[in-house]
Amino acid sequence: MQHKTIDELLKSEKTHIDVIVRGWVRSFRSNRFIALNDGSTIKTLQCVVDFENFDEEILKKTTVGAAIEVAGVLVESQGQGQTVEVQVSKLTVLGEANPEDVKLTILSPKRHSLETLREQAHLRVRTNTFGAVMRTRSKLAFAVHEYFQKNGFNYMHSPIITGSDAEGAGEMFRVTNLDAKNPPLDENGNVDFKEDFFEKETNLTVSGQLEAETYAMALGKVYTFGPTFRAENSNTSRHLAEFWMIEPEVAFNDLDANMDLAEDFIKYVINYALENCADDLEFLENRLLEEEKNKPQDERSEMKLREKLRFILENNFKRVSYTEAIDILKRSKPNQKKKFKYIIEEWGADLQSEHERFLVEKHFKSPVILFDYPAKIKAFYMRLNDDGKTVRAMDVLFPGIGEIVGGSQREERYDVLKQKMEAMDISTEELYWYLDLRKFGTAVHSGFGLGFERLVQFTTGMGNIRDVIPYPRTPGNAEF
Amino acid sequence: MQHKTIDELLKSEKTHIDVIVRGWVRSFRSNRFIALNDGSTIKTLQCVVDFENFDEEILKKTTVGAAIEVAGVLVESQGQGQTVEVQVSKLTVLGEANPEDVKLTILSPKRHSLETLREQAHLRVRTNTFGAVMRTRSKLAFAVHEYFQKNGFNYMHSPIITGSDAEGAGEMFRVTNLDAKNPPLDENGNVDFKEDFFEKETNLTVSGQLEAETYAMALGKVYTFGPTFRAENSNTSRHLAEFWMIEPEVAFNDLDANMDLAEDFIKYVINYALENCADDLEFLENRLLEEEKNKPQDERSEMKLREKLRFILENNFKRVSYTEAIDILKRSKPNQKKKFKYIIEEWGADLQSEHERFLVEKHFKSPVILFDYPAKIKAFYMRLNDDGKTVRAMDVLFPGIGEIVGGSQREERYDVLKQKMEAMDISTEELYWYLDLRKFGTAVHSGFGLGFERLVQFTTGMGNIRDVIPYPRTPGNAEF
Repeated sequence: MQHKTIDELLKSEKTHIDVIVRGWVRSFRSNRFIALNDGSTIKTLQCVVDFENFDEEILKKTTVGAAIEVAGVLVESQGQGQTVEVQVSKLTVLGEANPEDVKLTILSPKRHSLETLREQAHLRVRTNTFGAVMRTRSKLAFAVHEYFQKNGFNYMHSPIITGSDAEGAGEMFRVTNLDAKNPPLDENGNVDFKEDFFEKETNLTVSGQLEAETYAMALGKVYTFGPTFRAENSNTSRHLAEFWMIEPEVAFNDLDANMDLAEDFIKYVINYALENCADDLEFLENRLLEEEKNKPQDERSEMKLREKLRFILENNFKRVSYTEAIDILKRSKPNQKKKFKYIIEEWGADLQSEHERFLVEKHFKSPVILFDYPAKIKAFYMRLNDDGKTVRAMDVLFPGIGEIVGGSQREERYDVLKQKMEAMDISTEELYWYLDLRKFGTAVHSGFGLGFERLVQFTTGMGNIRDVIPYPRTPGNAEF
Repeated sequence: MQHKTIDELLKSEKTHIDVIVRGWVRSFRSNRFIALNDGSTIKTLQCVVDFENFDEEILKKTTVGAAIEVAGVLVESQGQGQTVEVQVSKLTVLGEANPEDVKLTILSPKRHSLETLREQAHLRVRTNTFGAVMRTRSKLAFAVHEYFQKNGFNYMHSPIITGSDAEGAGEMFRVTNLDAKNPPLDENGNVDFKEDFFEKETNLTVSGQLEAETYAMALGKVYTFGPTFRAENSNTSRHLAEFWMIEPEVAFNDLDANMDLAEDFIKYVINYALENCADDLEFLENRLLEEEKNKPQDERSEMKLREKLRFILENNFKRVSYTEAIDILKRSKPNQKKKFKYIIEEWGADLQSEHERFLVEKHFKSPVILFDYPAKIKAFYMRLNDDGKTVRAMDVLFPGIGEIVGGSQREERYDVLKQKMEAMDISTEELYWYLDLRKFGTAVHSGFGLGFERLVQFTTGMGNIRDVIPYPRTPGNAEF
């Protein structure tokens, strides 16, 4: 007889069949009712033990966290809260779990702080909260792939180790094989990276965009989905040193088409989560309500978790130019009453999270796409508008979180790009291959980047980004 | 009117409709027939120009590699080789391509060596060969996700930067932020990694398996699919310093179930490629035939590419113990006639690619799974058999390529694992979390690793692993 998952059994339409189930004990009430979980669902399967007929030693070992196997008959449940349960005929303890061990207390129903759980990152995924988050994360990742593949995109693995540090998107980590203490030196007394593994200085990628562009100019529609790195000393609830990024890039798409793509894509993956993670999202919604009970009224979320997700699906993303947004912000109450931390004085200001959230949550009350930003606050590769001072950039802004997507139409004109690189001190020699794209059959193209963990945070309602990735890497932290 | 991809148009059942198509010129015959490609398929769309009615300047710029837009009517084709074509009413050159530029010669129909193309990795994907390989790579990657998600697995992102160097699977790259020339030193004069970004020495991961095990012991079935790294100085056609690895891990699976999973999984993804990459695989099959024409008869493949793929689907993987395999090899002709480079003398020998290929290609004439290897040639985490000298390891061996999958049932017994780690000098302190899995609800579990590039090589028939990943990283090479 094949062993079935609890998710399969709970969905089973047949009862009065023999089953074998394996999982971990979540609770054991009255020496009679085992709540069994195997990770396939947040739900537990009730396994009913007729304790008088079982070995007392085995029952004693049936403690929270123990791995067990039960054989029995699947029957309709008499009790509340479940439709089926197992009448156990045989109970085997596969792996004990000492109920006295302090590490196991994280499995007790008593609430533990997320900080405490973070220290047990190898065990926290056994809790309801982290099980729900990580199952949802997996489903969201699949939705990303499914969306792009359905729409004719090619998945492209951009390189992780890069010899180019030209993009300037952020501080990089060095990848090296040289002796850490006594590196070889060249004749000028500098570290001789020619002796390193790649015979040059190499770093961990901060973005796969530039390489993705090379593929878009051949395959048409491509996307990356891989890890990216920032060596920035940001100890916040929004930053990780290692995170996963999604970067689609499409030949012949202008900025409008890019905005259409971003909106359609985000709605697809969020809808996928709503449809495929119903139980986990219900749990996470209740968790959030519980958590926010301790907060003052005005700090609580305006919408429940799934309501917020449906809000994204049901609203057109409002498209607003940066210039218009600055006007709105300048005239806004929080700006005039100096409630913003950063007062908007004039056109050209970089928007902060508080401004983005004001636009989304207070002013438009819908997701917002800002576009046509000042050239001087954006990257070198964004296409210059005819006004000579704005670029075809766009940011998608979400309630509660601010920027979730940043993208642009890329500068496809060789001369304009070269000039801009020189003005911004980006090496045209090192990025010769990026300029080549503008020499040989150049065309309009656009793309964007979405930090996957931000999406998971938004979808699961988790406040700290360290709680939506299995093993978070932050300054001072690379455990496990 | 929306712009459609060439793949969509070629599959279109409607003709006599207005279309706009954008892509890159592959050829322009007789000032009349443009073969247009946009990367959505290996096929080109024939665009017919009535040259007398077009501006001569524009026709002159319609050169190989140029990006163009054509507007016209989709009609049934009179010519051979295509069912539909476009009667062009308007032709716009979006981006020129100087036909004199030496870099563009790689787009000419003349064959270029794969080595030459490798130096133009940003442009090589515009050739038929690399377009076909990279589209197939994308489809294979999706098949991996689809298979696991359909079967209830959770995708898990194991960490890339790791603080643990305990696994010993290979040489690692150091990830650091310290000054390369003058790193801070501690009181003993050693490099003070406490001053580094993560406050300890960190490396790039060689495998996500150990972390995947922590998730399997909570979520039941998980898989990783991410980049892994080896700082080994192997300049071969089979090794990369950066490659993508797939590692499923399943709680309650023993080695037999693990073998079932590996076989079922591989057949699924290969079948997916056969069904979804028909045009690309046909092209690659012909490319390979062409390439092998120059080889002596006995070095040519016995089967055509797609025949070889179907061979995998149609054969049960033969399961053979290591001990049995050694007997077969010892008695084999190439061993007795000393044709093997490494003669098999006795039980305990590590098998080389030549031995694996002999078993698959000559002896069994089917894919083979070897299992129960000597403990001393395998990793510390593999489950010890009762004989005390073999472990529950398995390798899947394929024709032409040798090992494609390596896996094992993991040692789930705390005492046995701890003893083995100590004997093999693996730090039990550093891997306390790995031992914890055996303390709290331990259970039988198994998994395997499959190097994604090996799979792409096998499926596309490409001889060199550098030609199946966009930007290969090898000793001395981290270009782009």
